[in-house]
Amino acid sequence: MKLITFRRGSDARPGLALDDAIGLDLGAADPGLPGRWNELLGEPALMQRVARLARDASQQGELRPATALFPLAGVELLPPVPAPSKIIAVGLNYRDHAEEQHKPLPDRPLLFAKAPSCLQSPAGPILLDADLTQVDGEAELAVVIGRAGRAIPRERARDHIAGYMCFNDVSDREAQYADKQWFRGKSIDTGGPCGPWIVTPDELPDLANGLAVAGYLNGESWQRSNTRQLIFPVDELIRWASLHMTLLPGDLISTGTPGGVGIYRDPPRFLRPGDVVEVEIEGIGRLTNPVLAR
Amino acid sequence: MKLITFRRGSDARPGLALDDAIGLDLGAADPGLPGRWNELLGEPALMQRVARLARDASQQGELRPATALFPLAGVELLPPVPAPSKIIAVGLNYRDHAEEQHKPLPDRPLLFAKAPSCLQSPAGPILLDADLTQVDGEAELAVVIGRAGRAIPRERARDHIAGYMCFNDVSDREAQYADKQWFRGKSIDTGGPCGPWIVTPDELPDLANGLAVAGYLNGESWQRSNTRQLIFPVDELIRWASLHMTLLPGDLISTGTPGGVGIYRDPPRFLRPGDVVEVEIEGIGRLTNPVLAR
Repeated sequence: MKLITFRRGSDARPGLALDDAIGLDLGAADPGLPGRWNELLGEPALMQRVARLARDASQQGELRPATALFPLAGVELLPPVPAPSKIIAVGLNYRDHAEEQHKPLPDRPLLFAKAPSCLQSPAGPILLDADLTQVDGEAELAVVIGRAGRAIPRERARDHIAGYMCFNDVSDREAQYADKQWFRGKSIDTGGPCGPWIVTPDELPDLANGLAVAGYLNGESWQRSNTRQLIFPVDELIRWASLHMTLLPGDLISTGTPGGVGIYRDPPRFLRPGDVVEVEIEGIGRLTNPVLAR
Repeated sequence: MKLITFRRGSDARPGLALDDAIGLDLGAADPGLPGRWNELLGEPALMQRVARLARDASQQGELRPATALFPLAGVELLPPVPAPSKIIAVGLNYRDHAEEQHKPLPDRPLLFAKAPSCLQSPAGPILLDADLTQVDGEAELAVVIGRAGRAIPRERARDHIAGYMCFNDVSDREAQYADKQWFRGKSIDTGGPCGPWIVTPDELPDLANGLAVAGYLNGESWQRSNTRQLIFPVDELIRWASLHMTLLPGDLISTGTPGGVGIYRDPPRFLRPGDVVEVEIEGIGRLTNPVLAR
């Protein structure tokens, strides 16, 4: 399944992308379901109801009530989980990226936080204040947590994964390096485009391994790698993070970025108003975000 | 007013501490009010309804329905905002602490994040896994955001403050220094005792300036300072953080800790099962948290 959140009027509503063209409004199809993915992802019984709705819709080619179906082109997709309790991100986690920098491989995952207020829609603008002149994009695979857990053994990590999505870990390098703590530079408003949907694990290889990850700037290839290059794969990240922190339904773990980001280019190339940044992950989809002056 | 969240059955409910002994259940007094402080703090009209309930209760000495009143001793107080969208914390922000370390004063606030899953009740235990042997407490004043805002000028910061509370910025020094990024070490479950209530600004000096801040370990004075030692006061922290991040109702900014923490003692002294850590702020109240093996 492809889990979306879409705007209807002033509401953010959970739904499904049934295919490239048709969406299903979960609240219209089953008014008893909670209105936010955070309240669904951790509840197996509710997720089974969601799966049944998806199956009925695809088997019958239509749904009763048909009003639950809508053309995806007619709605704005929002971040699939608009307000997760936390966004955990991972530093230096691509083998090819570490090797190209001649850096030793880290012996444990390096976690940092992004404020959830940074999240942006899959096609929404990245807004730059005039004094932000060193902002960079980072193409990443993000894991979305389903069932809550703490101290999750690696072999049980799959039980806690709701799905996967694309994530652009937009970074204000000036703040990131001036503070040394990365939090402020990683948390600018609109600096977390994500989606376009959460793809459930059954539609992807085990632990989303072996997927091509690509970043584009103005249509040119910018970052290109594969999730098999992850130094710490998804199950190890879940184990490690959950040793310290209870993971809650809807929490995000963005797994790190491959080489090619702007700060390491020669000369460095940062995002400017007028640019278009894209993140694409095989089997998941693509984010396309214009960069605009605020 | 003193804004509390308390447990009734399995529910977390917003209320007021009318005095040391009597609580007011907001939902019972006015069933039309939202059930979480996050949904109240940013709404001036709702907060006026809350203030009217508090005034009526204190003027009449009783409330109709009287069932809205309850003895505070009979309930468990929870974190006043159980699930803020973010916790922003501040490094090295006490003048006396910087001077005792002969460190130059920072020229701008150093922000970092704690995962909201770390929050603990004002009297709840700090739980230590067996391998956490370098955990430390930090007595801090925390500001709670009321009205949402972005790029808030310093002179408008007061318009965005819901109130103040005590905060213990519990820190796993091993993770904090091994990662260099402080997020993981600052985010252990139960590592954010806070409360016991949010004191509204009208009951405190302007910007909570001039308040004694104290930490105690097993009843002995451990940290002792005053908020007038803050290098970056509350209004400047709000300005600075909101340049990058939209601040949302219920968001916390914990303003940093004075000298005396365990890691800088000679020899270092970390928290051990059996300890009791306390944080006290003049005019606000006191947190008392036992340290237990998980």
